[in-house]
Amino acid sequence: MTNIIHWLLPKEEKFFLMLRDQASNVVEGANEFKNLIDNYNSLSDVKRGELVKKIKEIESKGDNIVHKIIGSLDKTFVTPIDKEDIHNLTSLLDDVIDLIYAASIRLKIFKIKIVDVHMKSSADIIQDTIKKIEMGVIGVSKLRSMNRFYIDIHTLENKADDLYHKALEDLFNNRNPVVIIKYKEIYDFLEDITDKCEDIANVIESIVVKHA
Amino acid sequence: MTNIIHWLLPKEEKFFLMLRDQASNVVEGANEFKNLIDNYNSLSDVKRGELVKKIKEIESKGDNIVHKIIGSLDKTFVTPIDKEDIHNLTSLLDDVIDLIYAASIRLKIFKIKIVDVHMKSSADIIQDTIKKIEMGVIGVSKLRSMNRFYIDIHTLENKADDLYHKALEDLFNNRNPVVIIKYKEIYDFLEDITDKCEDIANVIESIVVKHA
Amino acid sequence: MTNIIHWLLPKEEKFFLMLRDQASNVVEGANEFKNLIDNYNSLSDVKRGELVKKIKEIESKGDNIVHKIIGSLDKTFVTPIDKEDIHNLTSLLDDVIDLIYAASIRLKIFKIKIVDVHMKSSADIIQDTIKKIEMGVIGVSKLRSMNRFYIDIHTLENKADDLYHKALEDLFNNRNPVVIIKYKEIYDFLEDITDKCEDIANVIESIVVKHA
Repeated sequence: MTNIIHWLLPKEEKFFLMLRDQASNVVEGANEFKNLIDNYNSLSDVKRGELVKKIKEIESKGDNIVHKIIGSLDKTFVTPIDKEDIHNLTSLLDDVIDLIYAASIRLKIFKIKIVDVHMKSSADIIQDTIKKIEMGVIGVSKLRSMNRFYIDIHTLENKADDLYHKALEDLFNNRNPVVIIKYKEIYDFLEDITDKCEDIANVIESIVVKHA
Repeated sequence: MTNIIHWLLPKEEKFFLMLRDQASNVVEGANEFKNLIDNYNSLSDVKRGELVKKIKEIESKGDNIVHKIIGSLDKTFVTPIDKEDIHNLTSLLDDVIDLIYAASIRLKIFKIKIVDVHMKSSADIIQDTIKKIEMGVIGVSKLRSMNRFYIDIHTLENKADDLYHKALEDLFNNRNPVVIIKYKEIYDFLEDITDKCEDIANVIESIVVKHA
Repeated sequence: MTNIIHWLLPKEEKFFLMLRDQASNVVEGANEFKNLIDNYNSLSDVKRGELVKKIKEIESKGDNIVHKIIGSLDKTFVTPIDKEDIHNLTSLLDDVIDLIYAASIRLKIFKIKIVDVHMKSSADIIQDTIKKIEMGVIGVSKLRSMNRFYIDIHTLENKADDLYHKALEDLFNNRNPVVIIKYKEIYDFLEDITDKCEDIANVIESIVVKHA
């Protein structure tokens, strides 16, 4: 990644500024999710509901940013960065915040009483991963060296994978099938989040390779 | 959306005619699905099977339309409308009819005895949404004003979301885990249908913005 | 499919060679999966674990091939074959090997004691389908007549669909909900594999039509 500055005309910078807005909104969602998970077991139902609602608002704010980015993209004829890549980045970042909300609202819908250790570790990994993703989105427009970035994301994704498999194994030692169904659905959403982050890292890598 | 007529050469009109065929086939599927759901509880197993088979035929007819559209697209070198958009539209419309069939056949496979109130409301929303989607597909090739269209689809999608969350909440009050598994899978398919319709509305919006 | 050789410059041939590598790696995965399934019921847990680990290694090898293909694609400016098609092919082949591993590791995580007749038939169909997919990937770069190929893949996919529906029906006659959850997840992964193969056949058909 040598000299990305040459192809960063003002028009393109606009897209990166919007993508950075979107990434920072997803970070906010991950922070609120970690806050919800860390304190869940000691909170009242009302307080839990308030925190889930806060995440819903972040998710809605994300929808507006997506709409703005796609709209600008559709009105722009030529971009030195592939439109497809910007489109993918924005749609993957949107998937991440949607999944964070999906996991959060399931806690409420399923009337989950106790958030377990796997969900807590998951919320930690998710927060770490998304903070790195934000750095990647900033880096791709700022000429930062990115090798560490890919390695870190893949390491975190592998960690999340192992955690997910361990969580499933423990879950099926539980004899209550309804508990299995509920927790499994939430684990699935959480695992999907780090998968999407790996997809985002791959798109960022593609952009960098194309403009090296 | 001012003057879409300028870029609608005969060759492109062909694609819109095929897409309208496809959309009208999906409407037929949604109508048959509503017919199945509305009458399900009072029908014999044989009659239920016949109605599911009818939906299977509509789904297969859809496959042929998709094959025709993609084949024509591959043989056409230049289009003023992005090929990608036509490709996405046709593939999303195909997903919708596939999901309608997937939900229908699950009623049979799972030996569902009673279709519940959530499925009935869902079939209503799905029918309304798909009728609007057909209007959108006609509109995009006919210069109709479309603002109302996006708002309507998003409103219907939100309604479907709320219904889905309410249905899940009620379902988990049921103590029978096998019933939960069966109904949850069908609810998931139904919820996915309105999600895909929202994706279709977004593609239509993209096409209109690009050619405004 | 008349004369594909004209557009096969050395640079493009490179992509087909890599895609053939990838396809042959997926065939290897399908063979190991069939080996695992065929012998599962008589193997020790240790031996089962070893076979799953072997599939994991094939999956990891696949990741490296994908990384190489996408990297080359990003560095190549003009290709007579659509980059999008190469990208889709490689990503779908990757999905197939990921799903084979996902099904395999679930046998271990869920502590499955008995592999049933549906899984065995599924492993057969999957092996047949993936061998044909490899022929398709070779064929698209080798000017072979391909009509038989599409028909074969669609026939196999229909067979897999019927098998899946029958397997679900049988499964729900089982009264143990935890067994239902475990086996259903594995069936779902297996069914998804043949779906992805049909998607691959469609991409291959698109490439051939565009260059006929």
